[in-house]
Amino acid sequence: MISLHEVSGGVCAPKGFKAGGIHCGIRKNKEKKDFALIVSEVPCAAAGVFTQNLVKGAPVVVTKRNISDGVAQAVICNSGNANTCNRDGEEVALKMCSLVTDVCGIKPSDVIVASTGVIGVPLDIAPMAQNIGRLYDSLGDDSDGAAEAIMTTDTVPKSVAVEFLAGGAVCRVGAIAKGVGMICPNMATTLIFITTDVGISHEMLQRALSEDVKSSFNMVSIDGDQSTNDTCCILANGLAGNEKIVSSGADFAAFRAALRHCTVKLSKMIARDGEGATKLIECNVRGAKSVKMARNVARSVIKSSLVKAAMFGSDANWGRVLCAIGYSGEAVDAQKIAVEFRSVKGRLPVCRDGSGLEFDEAFAKEVLSQGEVEINVDLGLGGCRASAWGCDLTYDYVKINGDYRT
Amino acid sequence: MISLHEVSGGVCAPKGFKAGGIHCGIRKNKEKKDFALIVSEVPCAAAGVFTQNLVKGAPVVVTKRNISDGVAQAVICNSGNANTCNRDGEEVALKMCSLVTDVCGIKPSDVIVASTGVIGVPLDIAPMAQNIGRLYDSLGDDSDGAAEAIMTTDTVPKSVAVEFLAGGAVCRVGAIAKGVGMICPNMATTLIFITTDVGISHEMLQRALSEDVKSSFNMVSIDGDQSTNDTCCILANGLAGNEKIVSSGADFAAFRAALRHCTVKLSKMIARDGEGATKLIECNVRGAKSVKMARNVARSVIKSSLVKAAMFGSDANWGRVLCAIGYSGEAVDAQKIAVEFRSVKGRLPVCRDGSGLEFDEAFAKEVLSQGEVEINVDLGLGGCRASAWGCDLTYDYVKINGDYRT
Repeated sequence: MISLHEVSGGVCAPKGFKAGGIHCGIRKNKEKKDFALIVSEVPCAAAGVFTQNLVKGAPVVVTKRNISDGVAQAVICNSGNANTCNRDGEEVALKMCSLVTDVCGIKPSDVIVASTGVIGVPLDIAPMAQNIGRLYDSLGDDSDGAAEAIMTTDTVPKSVAVEFLAGGAVCRVGAIAKGVGMICPNMATTLIFITTDVGISHEMLQRALSEDVKSSFNMVSIDGDQSTNDTCCILANGLAGNEKIVSSGADFAAFRAALRHCTVKLSKMIARDGEGATKLIECNVRGAKSVKMARNVARSVIKSSLVKAAMFGSDANWGRVLCAIGYSGEAVDAQKIAVEFRSVKGRLPVCRDGSGLEFDEAFAKEVLSQGEVEINVDLGLGGCRASAWGCDLTYDYVKINGDYRT
Repeated sequence: MISLHEVSGGVCAPKGFKAGGIHCGIRKNKEKKDFALIVSEVPCAAAGVFTQNLVKGAPVVVTKRNISDGVAQAVICNSGNANTCNRDGEEVALKMCSLVTDVCGIKPSDVIVASTGVIGVPLDIAPMAQNIGRLYDSLGDDSDGAAEAIMTTDTVPKSVAVEFLAGGAVCRVGAIAKGVGMICPNMATTLIFITTDVGISHEMLQRALSEDVKSSFNMVSIDGDQSTNDTCCILANGLAGNEKIVSSGADFAAFRAALRHCTVKLSKMIARDGEGATKLIECNVRGAKSVKMARNVARSVIKSSLVKAAMFGSDANWGRVLCAIGYSGEAVDAQKIAVEFRSVKGRLPVCRDGSGLEFDEAFAKEVLSQGEVEINVDLGLGGCRASAWGCDLTYDYVKINGDYRT
């Protein structure tokens, strides 16, 4: 039996994790935290998924190496500078790991390091070196502080935690995330740090995470850009006391369900907080011949600038949805496609068998003017389905990105 | 010897072509022409390239069928309604062809038909049937009238014509185009009608056109969306009197150069008139291992919403350029990439060997504030190159597309 419910505490909800975040001086605005630390009492099984961009941030290179043995114990992260496309990038990322060693003895190679912010500007280690002691002293149940310190143009910190049963023990998964622009399939400029006290082998942990992101973070798109620094890491310290998960079965299923609850919730939070967004758009595709087809169609719709702009204007321009389905690269049959828009105000069927249905424009405006809008597509070809999340395209997106560096 | 220079007259510059455009009532605004006709005195060799979108407009289906025998003699086109995703779409497209027969006897199957505008709203044949006589009577040297009548959100009509020598005869190519949104590789919502008086077999005409669009219209991107109705057709009536081109050689090369002059010029005009655009962005990629690599990298940069927004803000955020190169799908080596911005104000090298170069921010603003900006990328891997054209992402793009239908 799987029992699953949300709890407070973010990454500090699972046993044995402490977190904190401070302003150390990388960002000019002193009100904005820019330096985060998460530490486990004991070494953890570790797993990660990373950007597929061939231009990779130095922290990504170092973190991949550090978790290649399946073990890690801490996460250090700064915002305000991505430490990417700099000649000394790897050196600086390694120094960040060593700062953790300096304050608590955890080996540099057991540290997950991440950076987010502007690309191509050297990252000065000095503000972090000068403030690592203060950051370490601040550690506690401060998941919110860490969540704030990893934000860039995010407007709200993003955090979730759940409790569930596995192997007779009460277990927890907690997570924080940042990312609102350059969000796209393949984890673009998303940083996600997940903690759990479940006992699990690092092989099963990696398997769970790799499978999960395919239907969670990789189904989020804000603007189609893919970042150089995307990192999603999970640490499992085993302090819940469950029988260690080393293969599939009920316990693994319970853990995967808990993980999925957290990742889908964060995916929606990321999409809803998309740069300049006024609404969360969820595209649900069913009737596909394969999951791959369903996913590609859902992402194609969510990524369309014209669909996104229509959603901003609460314009039931379903032709743009059909158009985006048509260029998804999947062998759809236009004559079989049905589309409806849906929100708390009700359902608005707009297309059946590839042709338009009559609808009331006033009701359409009402349905589409809500903060969460679904675009539901039935391809009429099979039994597979998928969901993707995104947001509308607004004046503020352009404003935020028109002059990001200054 | 190839002699090539621009002339006036658009699609009416080549011998034996007449054109015109009127308002017939499909568009509500009576100031806006919405009905165009181009007619050749004699039957022409015909060729075309069309949208790759699996959701295809009815006119595309009919036109592909009509030119499958390599012959056509007229183009009929309306704006204000795409005649796409309608149950009676094909029937209406066929009726449009028959209207041409009614006024001048050209067989319906020798007519190229095109529609552009909103998707999913039935297209009423009545305003066209009532006004086809008036449109036919208006035919003359009115390439501009036709160019206006095919516009949707275009702000300027797009037209070009050149004169050149082939087979001892003076020949001409003329063209009109529309398209400012939903522009993307694979010909998205672009309508392009090209006329020429050169004598050429329809096989060689198709070969020239198919090759040409790969490095012209398919390298234009406004917003990454691909339309259901893209059509690029060419009619060659042979009235120039040159020895008919039936194989490669000097005459074919001369014709291809003339065609390319027209298509590249129209590509830039389309990009510059991108919805809401304030500037034309040209991305020139060199040092690629293959032309395919160069093209994919150039398109990836031109399509990046973040690069486009940075260009709007005249922000030399070259990290976004590297990021877009990194997710192009091509096996680039980040450590070998060089990037410079360039405009009439000068060159601004910003990245070498994948790392940033120091530059003066005031000079950067000056370079990037111009109406035409180049992003020049050297991949450092080989000898192939390509160019792509796009525009900046602005508040007005969002405004135009936030409520297109109303």
